Amino acid sequence: MKEKGKMRIIGLDPGLRHTGWGVIESDGNRLRHIADGTIHPPTNLSMAKRLACLAIELQKILERFNPVTAAVEETFVNKNPLTTLRLGFARGVVMMAPALFGIDVDEYPANQVKKSVVGAGHADKSQVQMMIKILLPGFQLTTPDSADALAIAICHAHRSATIKQWHQPHAERMS
Amino acid sequence: MKEKGKMRIIGLDPGLRHTGWGVIESDGNRLRHIADGTIHPPTNLSMAKRLACLAIELQKILERFNPVTAAVEETFVNKNPLTTLRLGFARGVVMMAPALFGIDVDEYPANQVKKSVVGAGHADKSQVQMMIKILLPGFQLTTPDSADALAIAICHAHRSATIKQWHQPHAERMS
Repeated sequence: MKEKGKMRIIGLDPGLRHTGWGVIESDGNRLRHIADGTIHPPTNLSMAKRLACLAIELQKILERFNPVTAAVEETFVNKNPLTTLRLGFARGVVMMAPALFGIDVDEYPANQVKKSVVGAGHADKSQVQMMIKILLPGFQLTTPDSADALAIAICHAHRSATIKQWHQPHAERMS
Repeated sequence: MKEKGKMRIIGLDPGLRHTGWGVIESDGNRLRHIADGTIHPPTNLSMAKRLACLAIELQKILERFNPVTAAVEETFVNKNPLTTLRLGFARGVVMMAPALFGIDVDEYPANQVKKSVVGAGHADKSQVQMMIKILLPGFQLTTPDSADALAIAICHAHRSATIKQWHQPHAERMS
């Protein structure tokens, strides 16, 4: 059963070797860590099977944690076109999975994610991870990929809270 | 029921706006056209929903025509990295779908497809389409995308027939 005001968010950090995921719950400005992890599609499989494995694992996670919204970081375009293409394969499947599950997928550029978590768009990984620990009490760092995914989920929560605030009547916002 | 020696092949030509598909049946060196078409995910949807739409339509086609193997053309890497990335999204989903359905997906470079259909790697589209009509009696051209998909399926059928021939005992091959 959904509790009033609470919102479950899944953040996703796509990659063919490692796809990070992180689920949080936001309740106004309060955030809570639910779960996180990393999917590693076996590298000895064919490309098609690796992508199918990614889709199956994502589907399981979505069914288990039942988020109402998803967020993905905008992919860094690599200088090598073949690397960019392969990044696209994983990202296509990672964006498709929540849409198939029936929820919206928002995209955020990397510097917006950092700014939302740390307060600065040029923050380094360790600063982001330290802030995640502060924002999500009880969170223990497992992999850098799932930490990135949680950062994306936090960014989405902050963004949603801001949008909600601006859509409330002025008097209510000021009280 | 599967008939002995016959093999159903689906060829796929991935694209975000138009994904061509074509199903043929091969029986030794004989080929038969089964069906073809083009998927057009609505362009007014979000990227995630367009990819989900592509996955759903492919799943329906696979269930309806029940191919035992799939073939995809190797994607042309564009000079624009963003275009390459978006090509990757569609291609990732198109390669994933047959793997989720439980069949293998083989990849062929464009010049190999052309060479297999026309006999020359530098053939133009009209030559490819003319040869498809000769190789698949009864086939009526609907869209260039589905013709490309059929060409990929034909290439896969020729390739499979060659491999099969080389794996037969020498005496049998010569008879």
